[in-house]
Amino acid sequence: MRRWNGWGDDSIQPELPGTGLKFLKERIGPAKPLPDTSLEDVIAQVPPSRLPDHPLINTDPETRIRHARGQSLPDWLAMRSGQFQVFPDGVAQPEDAWRVRTLLDLAAEKGFNVIPYGGGTSVAGHINPLDDDTPVLTISLEQMNHLLDLDTESQIATFGAGTPGPLVESQLRARGYTLGHFPQSFELSTLGGWIASRSSGQQSLRYGRIEQLFAGGTVETLRGTLNIPTLPASSAGPDVREMVLGSEGRIGIITEAKVRVTPLPERESFHVMVFRNWHLAREAARRMVQAKLPLSMLRLSNAVETTTQLALAGHPLMTGLLETYLKLHGAGDGKCMMTFGITGTKRQCRFALKEVRAFCKPFRAVYMGTGMGRKWARKRFAMPYLRESLWQQGYAVDTLETATDWDNVDYLMGLIEVNLRHGLSHEEQPVHVFSHLSHVYPQGSSIYTTYVFPVAADYEATHERWKHLKETTSALIVNNRGTISHQHGVGKDHAPWLPQEKGELGMAALHGLVTTFDPGNRLNPGTLLRDETDSSGNDNRTGS
Amino acid sequence: MRRWNGWGDDSIQPELPGTGLKFLKERIGPAKPLPDTSLEDVIAQVPPSRLPDHPLINTDPETRIRHARGQSLPDWLAMRSGQFQVFPDGVAQPEDAWRVRTLLDLAAEKGFNVIPYGGGTSVAGHINPLDDDTPVLTISLEQMNHLLDLDTESQIATFGAGTPGPLVESQLRARGYTLGHFPQSFELSTLGGWIASRSSGQQSLRYGRIEQLFAGGTVETLRGTLNIPTLPASSAGPDVREMVLGSEGRIGIITEAKVRVTPLPERESFHVMVFRNWHLAREAARRMVQAKLPLSMLRLSNAVETTTQLALAGHPLMTGLLETYLKLHGAGDGKCMMTFGITGTKRQCRFALKEVRAFCKPFRAVYMGTGMGRKWARKRFAMPYLRESLWQQGYAVDTLETATDWDNVDYLMGLIEVNLRHGLSHEEQPVHVFSHLSHVYPQGSSIYTTYVFPVAADYEATHERWKHLKETTSALIVNNRGTISHQHGVGKDHAPWLPQEKGELGMAALHGLVTTFDPGNRLNPGTLLRDETDSSGNDNRTGS
Repeated sequence: MRRWNGWGDDSIQPELPGTGLKFLKERIGPAKPLPDTSLEDVIAQVPPSRLPDHPLINTDPETRIRHARGQSLPDWLAMRSGQFQVFPDGVAQPEDAWRVRTLLDLAAEKGFNVIPYGGGTSVAGHINPLDDDTPVLTISLEQMNHLLDLDTESQIATFGAGTPGPLVESQLRARGYTLGHFPQSFELSTLGGWIASRSSGQQSLRYGRIEQLFAGGTVETLRGTLNIPTLPASSAGPDVREMVLGSEGRIGIITEAKVRVTPLPERESFHVMVFRNWHLAREAARRMVQAKLPLSMLRLSNAVETTTQLALAGHPLMTGLLETYLKLHGAGDGKCMMTFGITGTKRQCRFALKEVRAFCKPFRAVYMGTGMGRKWARKRFAMPYLRESLWQQGYAVDTLETATDWDNVDYLMGLIEVNLRHGLSHEEQPVHVFSHLSHVYPQGSSIYTTYVFPVAADYEATHERWKHLKETTSALIVNNRGTISHQHGVGKDHAPWLPQEKGELGMAALHGLVTTFDPGNRLNPGTLLRDETDSSGNDNRTGS
Repeated sequence: MRRWNGWGDDSIQPELPGTGLKFLKERIGPAKPLPDTSLEDVIAQVPPSRLPDHPLINTDPETRIRHARGQSLPDWLAMRSGQFQVFPDGVAQPEDAWRVRTLLDLAAEKGFNVIPYGGGTSVAGHINPLDDDTPVLTISLEQMNHLLDLDTESQIATFGAGTPGPLVESQLRARGYTLGHFPQSFELSTLGGWIASRSSGQQSLRYGRIEQLFAGGTVETLRGTLNIPTLPASSAGPDVREMVLGSEGRIGIITEAKVRVTPLPERESFHVMVFRNWHLAREAARRMVQAKLPLSMLRLSNAVETTTQLALAGHPLMTGLLETYLKLHGAGDGKCMMTFGITGTKRQCRFALKEVRAFCKPFRAVYMGTGMGRKWARKRFAMPYLRESLWQQGYAVDTLETATDWDNVDYLMGLIEVNLRHGLSHEEQPVHVFSHLSHVYPQGSSIYTTYVFPVAADYEATHERWKHLKETTSALIVNNRGTISHQHGVGKDHAPWLPQEKGELGMAALHGLVTTFDPGNRLNPGTLLRDETDSSGNDNRTGS
């Protein structure tokens, strides 16, 4: 069953290997886990619903708890401590767009707010209700999870927007197709959520971001139904599709999504290459993508991430042998691991691998074959479970991500890491920080940074640690040519920093868009755009 | 010198070969050219300017004439007949964004409208002033035509938005880079115009449409300056960049554009392949692009276009030999010519060509090498001059274009062609019609249709012919899953059909966007969105 207070299925309990634990202890000291609250205790706290009785609305306390929070670190702290503070007043799980419409009409009539809910995997507070006087209905799209149509000539698949990653792929795979969108949250996140939050998948180099995959569909809004026709391309004015992408539930609820699919590839393999240092590795990555080498993914870990991954993988004997081998080939301390994917026909894959290896020769990379790549592919969606294991050992883990142009990648990654690493120095508490480039573009790259610190003596103090790290680093990012989010979206957590990125007129354009569709501010208020009442500087982000 | 009443430089006078003329006569009968008006006669008609005296505003009649019309067929008829009906009241050619700002502030203060002007190559009435009581200032960006910065690490070039195609490429080429954006109008159209009208270049398969090339920049609006930062990608809400793309001067004037550039390729070649019939050719094109073959362009002429091109090329002896050769290889009447480009390193090009040839074998294509492809590349921007030659023989030529999903390409192309071909049957006047797919996508394709008919006895009757063909076909397109424009934009000519494509809520979103930036409706009114006062059904499209 899905965990009510953490990630994924509760039958999956990955253990942290002893080498990993030792590695962390050496770096940031020992830790003492905080006690978890029980579900029963939280159920007892849930206040009565303020919503009208309605056959489509479920007001059962456990259901409301299970739709109250996402997966950000403050969400974890709230769920583990039981300090939810606010719950939706009810949850609806409509089976079709008609029922979504009915609920929206009801919201307008009865005066409650609506939060659309996909897989509940937001790490930026997208689906957290605000703590105010207006009742909140969370509309989960989970029942709208079918492949409705597949046009193999135009390669367009139509899905219910609540279809989660595994059901997107299994329903397509049975017909010989793939969407090719694999975010880290793949196991639980949904197609509609990907569109609403402008998601990016690990193989975006081949398949594109969700912006390139989303072809059209249907959005139920408070002003009626918005239909976006599929067109391969158009010059007919600004693209309404692009206004839905990233709208985070503020203009309507996506009910049906048409996406561009691809026949399953003949071959796919993932390879690992190790570079002597960051400088060589980063230059190779930049030049590979700028040379348009036919890769389907590229991920480049910096030196600390490479070392951390080897430690957390366990198998000290194997790792030792590997390190010796790499040292012999010139890659010792400071080495950086690149994982890349090659996808296509047998002939295309053979050619691509030859091209990549030839290209990387001047960068003196050590090619490691497909063994470690296979392992990465097998575990690619398991990372969030590691958070659970670390938590049980008393370690809190969070990630921060951005993207910037190549000329700024090293500088910004350095700033982020230094700020996090020394961010708790006032408590004399080191933080373990490492990064990788997860998505590369000819113009620049995403930077994905993970930071681990021991929980404090209580939940409040732990939250304070997070808040300080998150806020100072977010400000650094937007003040130094980074986007506040490359792949997690804005939600409530990033909303304070959006104006710095978009500028005053850009914000006016977004406000204008939201107002066109939702003048009464009923849909997911506080997400994406902080509302006027919210400009006092108070943040609704964590409820604590 | 640039022609005041037609396309391009007046020193270029391509002749229509005898075979081409004979070919057209056989199909649509002989024609008698209409008499051209002289520039002097038009100068005499220009009314006094209603604008205030200002050092940045030029009210010289000839300058006003030269900025009054674009290059649509009704624009030609207006220019050739001298029936302009309306001229801008003045033209400014500011040297920098600061002067653009000054002019916008003046417009707000004094109450005149503003039309931004790039290369004046619109074929949809983008830059034509409305005939109403408000004075109009046309702001030409022509003096802002420099490469301002080139970041070779992030591969971002910054240009003045008025830089025309040849100056974009020559300034980049000198530094070893290319933008790779080659619309048919390349010789005269500008970077800012491409962005404002969501342009597509012939090699978009490799370089992308302008949506993919435009990275950020500066837009002067009536509410201040909108700065769009460069980011390789972002999930931080709807993309403001995408609101500028296709805004057609309605939200502001693009003054500086940052674009994604690429190092000049090692090799580039254009190849021709001939298929026995449309069905095989279209299937090959669809499957090639869906298989992600590494092509840099693909253009597929249907049978009538193939025959027409061979006739218009002249060289009857060569053509005869070619036809005999093709017939021997199974490609007789009904044959279709595909031109494709291959770009990259020597190794990549060799591999790509091998892949394409192997891929097309089951489609029984006859590969013709690079001779005809070289010729196409040499003449790729000369097509608009052919219009001049046809005009002098009494033939009017216009084009219509759209894009649709693959499952609808044949049907829609058929509808468009039949409607045009028989569109003047009430006058017992045949129309010569042919099409090609100019841009292919995995999801679908653009359809680019050319139609030629003899001018009528006078300008008014000729305009009526055009109007009937244009209006009935535009309605057919939007009622049958086509976009009203894949690459020409909306302007004033396509605005009546936009609501059918965008839907009521989509239109509300566009109106909301324009209102956010320009509540007083001063910037290019009537373009993109028909204004409220214009919903009577009157069209401002042709001024005649």
